[in-house]
Amino acid sequence: MDMPTVDRMDRNAFVAAFGAIFEHSPWVAERAYAARPFGDVDRLHAAMTAAVQASSRAEQLALLRAHPDLAGKEAQDGTLTEASVGEQASAGLDRLTKAEVARIAEANAAYRARHGFPFIIAVRHYTKEGILHEFARRLANDTEVELRADLEQVFAITRIRLDRLIEKPATNADGPAASRNV
Amino acid sequence: MDMPTVDRMDRNAFVAAFGAIFEHSPWVAERAYAARPFGDVDRLHAAMTAAVQASSRAEQLALLRAHPDLAGKEAQDGTLTEASVGEQASAGLDRLTKAEVARIAEANAAYRARHGFPFIIAVRHYTKEGILHEFARRLANDTEVELRADLEQVFAITRIRLDRLIEKPATNADGPAASRNV
Repeated sequence: MDMPTVDRMDRNAFVAAFGAIFEHSPWVAERAYAARPFGDVDRLHAAMTAAVQASSRAEQLALLRAHPDLAGKEAQDGTLTEASVGEQASAGLDRLTKAEVARIAEANAAYRARHGFPFIIAVRHYTKEGILHEFARRLANDTEVELRADLEQVFAITRIRLDRLIEKPATNADGPAASRNV
Repeated sequence: MDMPTVDRMDRNAFVAAFGAIFEHSPWVAERAYAARPFGDVDRLHAAMTAAVQASSRAEQLALLRAHPDLAGKEAQDGTLTEASVGEQASAGLDRLTKAEVARIAEANAAYRARHGFPFIIAVRHYTKEGILHEFARRLANDTEVELRADLEQVFAITRIRLDRLIEKPATNADGPAASRNV
């Protein structure tokens, strides 16, 4: 799908296409729709993050709480959303030792107990070692710092999801990337 | 090398073994030596980070400035330290397209111009996409925030270097990790 197509969508089509970008939270796409036409992915994503920033604290908490635990029960039960499955697999979170699963489950529980919402991280940005490091570092933060950090990670995740969904306009600026194994 | 061996080292042997943990900055090992015996890697690393935290701002800036640019001139000239070569390769920074090299060079220059020290990141904790994301995010921060963020990344890098240098004591807690491909 390209941006001209997105900008021609009516509200129902737009929410059908983008309602799942923010995990289990189609209200973000519903509110962002008013800001169209977007023109490019930057502005589409900015409209979505602005809708979240303008939402109430209760809505922000609900958004965070709509996310699954990292390598948690939903991952083991096979009830993750399609996007989450690919994301958790990208960092190797689908092939952990039992000791690693136990360590992450303990960290998830400790984080939720302290902050009241799940630990969220853009796993496509981190290695497994980096995720474990961030768990330890962020667990110790104040909850207000973590509310912002968790939302920032949601914004990073949703930007990646949009970039994978929407075709980039043709450009020569990226050079012969298609011929390189990067 | 194991921790009992480390704790038996005289000052010269200790600095020879650990002088390169903080990039081109053996003074960190020299000052940490006074805190021995350490007993474990946690306390060895804590003594080193405490030496940096207690150092002057000029020394902290010199430490940061002793680090190479990410995917920069030293990487291309083959004059990185041995540790840096492996680290930069781990995130795929040794196999970038020309466009990516140019984009990172521009980001390095912008970061140095704004903050006065190089952008440092524990590349073993991030994917290439994550590193580019962090570049954009951190470039916009205040310099005081970034001085702390850069030092935190140095502490993460040096912890990883210590963990790779020092044998872990035998334990059953990690389970049969050796038989798993993680």
